[in-house]
Amino acid sequence: MKALLAEIISIGDELLIGQVVNTNASWMAQTLNHAGITVVQVTTVRDDRQAITEAVSAAMQRADMVLTTGGLGPTKDDITKTVLCELFHTRLVESPEVREHVRTLYANRPEVLNSLTATQWLVPEAAVILPNRVGSAPLMVFHRSATNVQQPKVLISLPGVPHEMQIAMTEQIMPYLKEHFALAADIIHRTIVVYGIPESTLALRIEQWEQALPPTIHLAYLPKQGVVRLRLSSYGEASADEVQQQIDALLPLIADHVLATDDLAPNVVLGRWLTERKQTIATAESCTGGRLAALLNEQSGSSVYYMGSVIAYDNSVKQQVLGVLPETLAADGAVSEACVRQMAEGVRRLLKTDYAIATSGIAGPTGGTPDKPVGTVWLAWATPNGTFAECRHFGGDRAQITNNAAMAALGKLLLLLKQ
Amino acid sequence: MKALLAEIISIGDELLIGQVVNTNASWMAQTLNHAGITVVQVTTVRDDRQAITEAVSAAMQRADMVLTTGGLGPTKDDITKTVLCELFHTRLVESPEVREHVRTLYANRPEVLNSLTATQWLVPEAAVILPNRVGSAPLMVFHRSATNVQQPKVLISLPGVPHEMQIAMTEQIMPYLKEHFALAADIIHRTIVVYGIPESTLALRIEQWEQALPPTIHLAYLPKQGVVRLRLSSYGEASADEVQQQIDALLPLIADHVLATDDLAPNVVLGRWLTERKQTIATAESCTGGRLAALLNEQSGSSVYYMGSVIAYDNSVKQQVLGVLPETLAADGAVSEACVRQMAEGVRRLLKTDYAIATSGIAGPTGGTPDKPVGTVWLAWATPNGTFAECRHFGGDRAQITNNAAMAALGKLLLLLKQ
Repeated sequence: MKALLAEIISIGDELLIGQVVNTNASWMAQTLNHAGITVVQVTTVRDDRQAITEAVSAAMQRADMVLTTGGLGPTKDDITKTVLCELFHTRLVESPEVREHVRTLYANRPEVLNSLTATQWLVPEAAVILPNRVGSAPLMVFHRSATNVQQPKVLISLPGVPHEMQIAMTEQIMPYLKEHFALAADIIHRTIVVYGIPESTLALRIEQWEQALPPTIHLAYLPKQGVVRLRLSSYGEASADEVQQQIDALLPLIADHVLATDDLAPNVVLGRWLTERKQTIATAESCTGGRLAALLNEQSGSSVYYMGSVIAYDNSVKQQVLGVLPETLAADGAVSEACVRQMAEGVRRLLKTDYAIATSGIAGPTGGTPDKPVGTVWLAWATPNGTFAECRHFGGDRAQITNNAAMAALGKLLLLLKQ
Repeated sequence: MKALLAEIISIGDELLIGQVVNTNASWMAQTLNHAGITVVQVTTVRDDRQAITEAVSAAMQRADMVLTTGGLGPTKDDITKTVLCELFHTRLVESPEVREHVRTLYANRPEVLNSLTATQWLVPEAAVILPNRVGSAPLMVFHRSATNVQQPKVLISLPGVPHEMQIAMTEQIMPYLKEHFALAADIIHRTIVVYGIPESTLALRIEQWEQALPPTIHLAYLPKQGVVRLRLSSYGEASADEVQQQIDALLPLIADHVLATDDLAPNVVLGRWLTERKQTIATAESCTGGRLAALLNEQSGSSVYYMGSVIAYDNSVKQQVLGVLPETLAADGAVSEACVRQMAEGVRRLLKTDYAIATSGIAGPTGGTPDKPVGTVWLAWATPNGTFAECRHFGGDRAQITNNAAMAALGKLLLLLKQ
């Protein structure tokens, strides 16, 4: 069966001056992919009639379905709806259903029900309108009516607000696509999460295995924040068993570095590990400043294993709340093995947990010294088997150092737990 | 002067199955924009010869400069370099400079210097090679040699690792572009950050002002996490003074909701406000779980005003570290006005700060009740003028509720401070 091809068109000036990161496209790509639809291109264009027209026309040539986001707000810079009307030779008409929905939506906020909001219940006559449960912009599906095309083609226009788009995709668009297209379910992606080995060293270690892969199974290396994800993909040509056989052959080659055999981030793996064993963890953060806590709390149910954190940005907090000795701070400074060990042990004692992680470092851009340059981070792990500490050096800007340090703290703990 | 047009092509399967968010494109767009280069399109394609060829060819037609990222790694799935060689009719030759650089780069990590890494010092003969200080993939600049084109056109190929790409853009590519193109410096973006008013209410309130804007100044509404950014842009047609005049006319209309008159996030505005006044802040977080701390620590220099946080995920931490009364937790629960007030006052006392923010709510997806559905968040602000508390309801998934609650906690504090 021929794979269904999709393209995504993200519309909005804010994306092209870099004020907003296009998280919508990756979320949609993931969702479409899991349903067996191959996304072949994402195009981001301005709120501009010609740019939207050209991008939509080109994408409709190449793909079976085109999904656009953005440009559906009530304000003047949003022109997607009128441009699509031109493209599909239709006009705007009032929709009593959408009007009723918008009035109900804003029943408690009458100040929002104004003349601008009223443009939201004008919809293209030729489009199928699906309900937008959480927002005022209607979801629009245009079917291409050309007679010389064998396969149906659709254009779907969605709001650009991520939360609205996600609910619309999940509740309306995916069921609609499943109803109107024969969706393949045989695209397979399997991911192995590897930590503590550089990409090229890894590639060399598994070179023979990689060369022996059948042409029906594709391998990709996805390095990020010290973690390398190895992804095996099959686009309808290999069976799940065949992919599993390759994974079974791969794992023994890299056993000392595997964090997970699913596409799970280290924080998720750790959360599951702790939940299964009914164990708990706490954190004491200096340079990572809440990033580690945020990672540990990303998952629902984290309150079962995550007791809390003391973010000890100031040395007085390290001393008074965590019990770091004044003489340690005076002699070794806050960015030192002794300090980070005392932080980990202090928070483990204070919050009565099985494990604790502590971080102290220089996230920069200021604060570095020749001795301890920006990017120097001490990490410590207090465990029932003793406390371990490690000094790491991270590159990049403040955000990257913070993120990478937090990720390293989790990655290393997972390898420690596996021992 | 005609504005210089750029397009960005992001290359990588991982972007089209949604495993990686394309943060590179927005970072590059912002950087190019600030140098007066207008980004008109971002195209994301797979690691596929035909897709790369078509996207690059089309972009070179439309734009003066095309920047690609990705596909330059040493592994087999990376094909950008060979595809660009075909497109620009050139071949790969060994570069002694790049070889030397890569050897120096990995001098301390001999395991990385293997046969795969060796492909990194093969470079296209026709390309200008610029040094990649932090990575092994060379930066390549191809000049289009067509004789019938008046303006020069270039294609620039950059690595896809965000940290490498950013250093390459800042240190090599932007200076190179400034040398080879007459860059306009008259693109103006000004942003007003507004909080506590819905987008359409805001639009109606400033409708007359908006209608009177000259056609040379463009207005965009950028709503995100409860904050609306109003952006005024001029693409070489209005002067900075003319834009400022419009801002001067706008501000009195929305004075009660303005957080900042620069494109600053609420955390940045708060950081500056506290730094100027030599005041300090602490946080006590339950449902936001570190997100608020991470926001407050995003900026360098935050250690001057940010003392730390107690992330009290577990009720025992709320009691023992923050001093929340057991009877409050028993009678009202953790998600209550009384609890969040005690958390804010407790952490303000413990860390001896001028201000403190506390959060307690239900981030979901589990844990909601009819009384306190998912998205219910109590916020409190302990200040020298007393403690204030507010119950808010946020939509979306766990990450959105957490982010929006953290942002609301900062936005509301700023409005309180302005009073």
